[in-house]
Amino acid sequence: MRHSLSPVLFNSAFAAAGLDCVYLAMEVGPESLAHAIMGLRALGAIGISVTMPHKEKIVPLLDEVTPMARLLKSVNVVRTVDGNLIGDTTDGTALVMALRDSHGVRLEGAKVAMLGTGSAARSVAVAICGSGIASVELIGRSDSGYVEMANLLSGFAPLGVKVSRGDLGSIGRCDVVINATSVGMSGTASEGELPFPIELMGSGQFLYDLVYSPLETPLVKAASSAGVRCANGVSMLTQIAALAFTDWTGETAPVESMRAAVEAALAERGRPGLVE
Amino acid sequence: MRHSLSPVLFNSAFAAAGLDCVYLAMEVGPESLAHAIMGLRALGAIGISVTMPHKEKIVPLLDEVTPMARLLKSVNVVRTVDGNLIGDTTDGTALVMALRDSHGVRLEGAKVAMLGTGSAARSVAVAICGSGIASVELIGRSDSGYVEMANLLSGFAPLGVKVSRGDLGSIGRCDVVINATSVGMSGTASEGELPFPIELMGSGQFLYDLVYSPLETPLVKAASSAGVRCANGVSMLTQIAALAFTDWTGETAPVESMRAAVEAALAERGRPGLVE
Repeated sequence: MRHSLSPVLFNSAFAAAGLDCVYLAMEVGPESLAHAIMGLRALGAIGISVTMPHKEKIVPLLDEVTPMARLLKSVNVVRTVDGNLIGDTTDGTALVMALRDSHGVRLEGAKVAMLGTGSAARSVAVAICGSGIASVELIGRSDSGYVEMANLLSGFAPLGVKVSRGDLGSIGRCDVVINATSVGMSGTASEGELPFPIELMGSGQFLYDLVYSPLETPLVKAASSAGVRCANGVSMLTQIAALAFTDWTGETAPVESMRAAVEAALAERGRPGLVE
Repeated sequence: MRHSLSPVLFNSAFAAAGLDCVYLAMEVGPESLAHAIMGLRALGAIGISVTMPHKEKIVPLLDEVTPMARLLKSVNVVRTVDGNLIGDTTDGTALVMALRDSHGVRLEGAKVAMLGTGSAARSVAVAICGSGIASVELIGRSDSGYVEMANLLSGFAPLGVKVSRGDLGSIGRCDVVINATSVGMSGTASEGELPFPIELMGSGQFLYDLVYSPLETPLVKAASSAGVRCANGVSMLTQIAALAFTDWTGETAPVESMRAAVEAALAERGRPGLVE
């Protein structure tokens, strides 16, 4: 929380848009969540970002949640409408927008392989399945994770999306590969590691890594060397913030200045000799 | 609230002191006060300023109040200590500090005349009576206001402070005259008016006007023309903020930069052609 990039993202956007708004990061323990939410309503906050460990627990404290948030039992953003708090979950939608708008990836008819079965992965899988893809192969270590994910996605059968359990062999035969695990993220046990050998991919594919710290993730570094088109998670992070910005202010988000601000903050963070 | 000078005062101070703090003005209705206070505790606010109409109603919502706040049944500032909210009332103390530090007024043994019996007047009267003065003559229109004030001040009898009901005749025979009414304040029915004829005062006296908008209040303007030493309420407003700043941050307040910021904001506000 202390190291959250959101204040940088939103405050740069408010400044760029000339809005008299400020975004603050506040640490709230699980025992204080209900009071914090009542307080933000009473104080007239126009919106709230929600992160772990509150994404599930906040749902019953809100006045309303979107169908997507209800399906995923998870909220990452709240907006205020006439004093009512409305929760939404936008991670997956943001990735779909980032793939289309920032990276020119065509999702209609695409075959997708996705690694991971956590909270971000679930949100991404749902949004991807609603974006016109042909199929998604889910790659994860646990049987229970796959079963849960397959249940979640069963509602997309009418859209003709083929959902199946994948393995490392899936990676080579898909158009788009998404790493929705945290493998390679700095400050974790898997720092510097690759979630799969990059030799599995070829130059006709696109690789999206949800990790954005370090800016050049191990996967992005390997893919770039191997001539595979790829992107780190900055565009998704920026889109999540852009969606919240528009929800809260009713204005178009200054996406480019937001991305520049977050990249500068991440680069600063990664500079050797700097203690965070 | 929308026109509160406090964000200007505090945010300039935080910037001058290099502190990662921000001060926000929030409109809270009486029905939402309890939730707002619970929320600010849960969100980890380091302090709260309180203004009308919440100064009394907030008292039972706090964990603790200072003796001064208990006596006046009123709180204008709250600080957080280990998650506990402690309320204080500092208007009067701030005026005493402003008279001494900003205007070089000697209060020990002084004869004081004070106009007004409202909330600010009560706080000022209590602090003045504790500052070593010889006497205070209370000038107000209502009998009940005087009785309430005299009761409040009865505890200062052991200090030898003589408290009496005054009238316009008191003004000429005192060392220090304090206008604690809002007469002359811009945007009120008495805009441009004087609370008393300035001819009642002479050059050996000091006049303090709690009003600070417009910066040159009608009373200050008249007194300056008549050669009477005087000051508007900016120094008290600044001292209230300086006391809160130190309470909240534990650091010395950058009083001069705070005063400069508030004077600039007030001057801007008073510029013709500007709609607030």
